Amino acid sequence: MLKVGRGAEAPPFIVMDVIAAANARAASLAPGDPRVIRMEVGQPSTGAPAGAVAAVTAAMQAGETLGYTEAFGIRPLRERIASLYAERYGLALDARRIAITVGASGAFPLAFLAAFDRGDHVALASPFYPPYVNILTALGLQPIVMEAGAESRFQPTVAMLERLDPRPAGLIVASPCNPAGTMLHRDELAALAAWCEANGVRLISDEIYHGLTYGEAASTAAAVSSSAIVINSFSKYWSMTGWRIGWMVLPDDLVRPVERLAQNMFISAPGIAQVAALAAIDCTEELDRHVARYRANRVLLLEALPKAGLDRLAPAEGAFYLYADVGHLTNDSAAFCTRMLAEIGVAATPGVDFDRTRGARSIRFSFCGATEDMAEAADRLTRWLARQ
Amino acid sequence: MLKVGRGAEAPPFIVMDVIAAANARAASLAPGDPRVIRMEVGQPSTGAPAGAVAAVTAAMQAGETLGYTEAFGIRPLRERIASLYAERYGLALDARRIAITVGASGAFPLAFLAAFDRGDHVALASPFYPPYVNILTALGLQPIVMEAGAESRFQPTVAMLERLDPRPAGLIVASPCNPAGTMLHRDELAALAAWCEANGVRLISDEIYHGLTYGEAASTAAAVSSSAIVINSFSKYWSMTGWRIGWMVLPDDLVRPVERLAQNMFISAPGIAQVAALAAIDCTEELDRHVARYRANRVLLLEALPKAGLDRLAPAEGAFYLYADVGHLTNDSAAFCTRMLAEIGVAATPGVDFDRTRGARSIRFSFCGATEDMAEAADRLTRWLARQ
Repeated sequence: MLKVGRGAEAPPFIVMDVIAAANARAASLAPGDPRVIRMEVGQPSTGAPAGAVAAVTAAMQAGETLGYTEAFGIRPLRERIASLYAERYGLALDARRIAITVGASGAFPLAFLAAFDRGDHVALASPFYPPYVNILTALGLQPIVMEAGAESRFQPTVAMLERLDPRPAGLIVASPCNPAGTMLHRDELAALAAWCEANGVRLISDEIYHGLTYGEAASTAAAVSSSAIVINSFSKYWSMTGWRIGWMVLPDDLVRPVERLAQNMFISAPGIAQVAALAAIDCTEELDRHVARYRANRVLLLEALPKAGLDRLAPAEGAFYLYADVGHLTNDSAAFCTRMLAEIGVAATPGVDFDRTRGARSIRFSFCGATEDMAEAADRLTRWLARQ
Repeated sequence: MLKVGRGAEAPPFIVMDVIAAANARAASLAPGDPRVIRMEVGQPSTGAPAGAVAAVTAAMQAGETLGYTEAFGIRPLRERIASLYAERYGLALDARRIAITVGASGAFPLAFLAAFDRGDHVALASPFYPPYVNILTALGLQPIVMEAGAESRFQPTVAMLERLDPRPAGLIVASPCNPAGTMLHRDELAALAAWCEANGVRLISDEIYHGLTYGEAASTAAAVSSSAIVINSFSKYWSMTGWRIGWMVLPDDLVRPVERLAQNMFISAPGIAQVAALAAIDCTEELDRHVARYRANRVLLLEALPKAGLDRLAPAEGAFYLYADVGHLTNDSAAFCTRMLAEIGVAATPGVDFDRTRGARSIRFSFCGATEDMAEAADRLTRWLARQ
């Protein structure tokens, strides 16, 4: 028996196993079983916008070779993303600081390896997106989880950071966040960024849900910190999960180090996805229709779920998730979700993946599906919870 | 000033900088300057085969959503790759062992993290593909470089491994290899695999240049080892570099560990590239025409370069590289390549990236371009070297 590395002990990203269970359920329905409504997966039910599809088709017809690009991606895409920061945030960014990556997932190892060393502590609030912790651990870094509750809208605060001993080398924030859907408002983000700069802590800001907000617009760390690493992606607002295309805004000191790492570890992001992404940026009208649907779904569920008995919901300021405290119904959210899928065909993700201490009492519902499906799910949940 | 991690010290993948220099030269030619002939880059000048292009166009027209796939990729592609092992090598493989990855590049971190722990020694022969060493180092592993010479066709041998103290945890082999283009013949590969199994050493076999051979066909480590990790890609034989799509054949004990790592680190490979790759596998006729061109280019250069004075060439059994010992002409291959590009517009890659001890006396020529370009390059080199 050969040895395996400690990396082999990485826990699964449980939502992927939940997706597989929902697929299996959908594939084995008996006559009369309710069809499966997918509220477990954090991806739009729609594909890439029409403009992106047209650009891909045109590239195919033109016989574009689509070889390796430069490690940081094609210039027009980097420049267009830089100009997006002017449009969205009123921020002038040098395109030299934009690195195109293989999704946000491809950005995390580059950011972590460039900014930290083995054993370094990297702080983040729980509940959190599970791969943060799993990638940090696989790379030999030490995640420091700060439990955040409803009083800080499940977001980290300077007070939580002040209590850490030793000081961490880094802080990961996400706004809007997954699974809670809550945001760091501009003053809160600025306060965290200022604390990081004053304490020599590298801020990593995951902004993948920007564009999906239902009150105030999201603020970018790039506007309040010159040392932060900003990570974003075309997966959510742009509805392009499977294209695996994202980007980073890098601080000046990490531009060349990250470029060298990217040359070695990725060579470049997929060329065809870069073509699609460049066109997608200008498909605002189509994409904003998706956002309008998420907004309607959110209103519908925020009204229906509390009536059904799920009344302990995080304030869903952005993203497309409702994070429900179900502690009054179960202390085993995984079993609860399994039963929910089997009995009423509603797939949702148990909190255990997002919060290793309190997640057995939480469930994440994704509301990026069709509005009729959300209404149907609410009806099923209402009847089912009345029987529990 | 914030700290940066040791990962930030990763050396560049120099060929990417050489490509940038060739691009810059091509963009700034003065009237009368010779156009740039690209022999520096290890990628086909052709795009994806027509069947792959048609499949992508059809997927776009059908409105396929192309969301995340399972972490190991779509089942039809995994099954088709498994059947490819039957066709190419007469080997029955369970598709469960096939993991679709973001290129071969995306496979290396998964393999290294699953198989090794920080500080572990991983052996490989020089000259080598630079990202092996740069990725190992970025992940905190320790590459052990064994100098290989013409007497072993620049490949590692059991005798070299026997001399290592301590025993390494892993061995990386590549056949055909980059930059030398040489192969491990079946008995040699089997001997290395047997030594690895007997000594508890994890074998990682990079088989990205399979299908590009000019004498005997390449052997796969999957046929001679049940514990080896095999890495391959659609970039070379299938002419799909920029699509970032590859695969691994995993030993049973690493299937689930690598799947968990992939769920966290990549989520999945690009969906559209999986569609393209599935179609590409059956485009043999078109792809074999490319191989016929490489074969013709190889014959042309193996005749012309020695006459021009580059007569110390590694036996190019596969891939599309000629690795030339230029020690009689220079002891600064980087400067030599820079001058060659400036004076006669022939771009090639200095050996310093592939061999940190002897590379200043070597150059890699890639011969995957057009045959007329190879002939023209040989003419220019003949006249230029006569003047040196």
